[in-house]
Amino acid sequence: MNSVESIISTYLPRIEKNLTELTPAAHLSDERLVAACRYSLLNGGKRLRPILVYLTGELFNAHQDDLNRISSAIECIHSYSLVHDDLPAMDDDELRRGRPTCHIAFDEATAILVGDALQCLAFETITECEFIGTSTNNQLKIVNTLAHASGLVGMCGGQALDIDATNRAISLEQLERVHKLKTGALLKSAITMGALAGNATNTEISALARYAESIGLAFQVQDDILDIEGDTQTLGKPQGSDLEANKATYPALLGLQGAKDKAHDLVNQAIAALSEIDADTGRLKAIAEYIIARDH
Amino acid sequence: MNSVESIISTYLPRIEKNLTELTPAAHLSDERLVAACRYSLLNGGKRLRPILVYLTGELFNAHQDDLNRISSAIECIHSYSLVHDDLPAMDDDELRRGRPTCHIAFDEATAILVGDALQCLAFETITECEFIGTSTNNQLKIVNTLAHASGLVGMCGGQALDIDATNRAISLEQLERVHKLKTGALLKSAITMGALAGNATNTEISALARYAESIGLAFQVQDDILDIEGDTQTLGKPQGSDLEANKATYPALLGLQGAKDKAHDLVNQAIAALSEIDADTGRLKAIAEYIIARDH
Repeated sequence: MNSVESIISTYLPRIEKNLTELTPAAHLSDERLVAACRYSLLNGGKRLRPILVYLTGELFNAHQDDLNRISSAIECIHSYSLVHDDLPAMDDDELRRGRPTCHIAFDEATAILVGDALQCLAFETITECEFIGTSTNNQLKIVNTLAHASGLVGMCGGQALDIDATNRAISLEQLERVHKLKTGALLKSAITMGALAGNATNTEISALARYAESIGLAFQVQDDILDIEGDTQTLGKPQGSDLEANKATYPALLGLQGAKDKAHDLVNQAIAALSEIDADTGRLKAIAEYIIARDH
Repeated sequence: MNSVESIISTYLPRIEKNLTELTPAAHLSDERLVAACRYSLLNGGKRLRPILVYLTGELFNAHQDDLNRISSAIECIHSYSLVHDDLPAMDDDELRRGRPTCHIAFDEATAILVGDALQCLAFETITECEFIGTSTNNQLKIVNTLAHASGLVGMCGGQALDIDATNRAISLEQLERVHKLKTGALLKSAITMGALAGNATNTEISALARYAESIGLAFQVQDDILDIEGDTQTLGKPQGSDLEANKATYPALLGLQGAKDKAHDLVNQAIAALSEIDADTGRLKAIAEYIIARDH
């Protein structure tokens, strides 16, 4: 069964368990900081990135222990970025998935340190021991993939470009560049790391990278659509908050129908890229379709 | 010649050059963010951690290319921690080594992202290619050492403990725990990583770790002494700022002379640990002595 619900229910308990066990015992560090890290990690997210790691890795029979580490690591990076993005100096959000954001539940200094520590925890987890199903050379490539995707030419760079674009008219091309870096790079790294853990060929990795780029962009287009069409309770954040922040969005540049058409095209491109993989990619196809079907 | 001046002048140009070349071309990321990263990396620091990487690695004939990467990485971590520590929600410092801090020279959102991106850059640099002078297994251990030292049971945890300790009476034992995590862990990782790059034995690494722990603590004791005895211009920060922030310090707990005695004892312990290494450790000895002789 390839419904997204069944995929999520297959992986979610394991992902949550791994994340729960990730932080050190409180007495080894600052108790409050450890509590804030756990609060931010165990935030009821959809865990899309870790799931993509498993789905891709399993196409190539990667070792489960390795995938566990990679998926925990990427979720640490994603979680840290949310904590920092929510800070007063950044997006200044008080709610995230219906719960107080980290700097509201704790305080600003703690939230800064939570982000710093979670980023670190990602790289610690992924290098704690030698991977079982692939070479140490590939493991290094995996760590490098994660670092590259999170940094200046990835997520951090994209977040900076996004801030620069606020209150400014930007072109569709510029908006796409923002999202490719801000959210696309990390999503793509989930796929690449899963494939590397399974010793996929460069041709396979490159087809999967195209899949990832398309769903990454589709995800963002759908986010923009939901900001207009969704309701606050389902979204877990105030509806219309992008408009209020005067942010460039796909619906603003393409119109609502234009944005929906674009999201559909991107999902079709993603599915087309999967046809080059000689394995059962049904679950990756289901994820692609879910991205534009979701309501939060 | 083992004077610290000559050691610094041997390594500083190379360290600065490596750091200059570390950030990607501005057009690949957000121009302002890249500029702020460079501003924060090239900040005229003493580069003690990178120098320790070289000095230790060279004891065991580690490959220079590997040491270049490790020393750039550890300085990225150190620089990011300064940028975040200076933020208004943390120490709220406007000057660092006589120059405006990152959030003053740029803005707060940029400073948060600079820290995030520099941390990432550390892990990217150190995994960019396979090390030449040691196994990929050891390289993974090096990455893990850096991540562990920077995280919850290292630098980030120590910074949180330090914040908790402000405006509170803490014991000497608690103060030592703060510093062991906040500054000691990263200093120790410089030594451990250099030694791992040179394929040192566990016995050698453990002796050097004791050296590092002692100089790490001595460094902090001396910082506290300088906060009382130094002048603002030499320090690059307002003299007496610890007292003003009501922070626990060694002179406050031990008296000024008691703190000076402790610093001397620690340096002697560091030098004693070096006697277990069968190589010319004269330059590490000079560094240990410099730590309590410095005036800024």
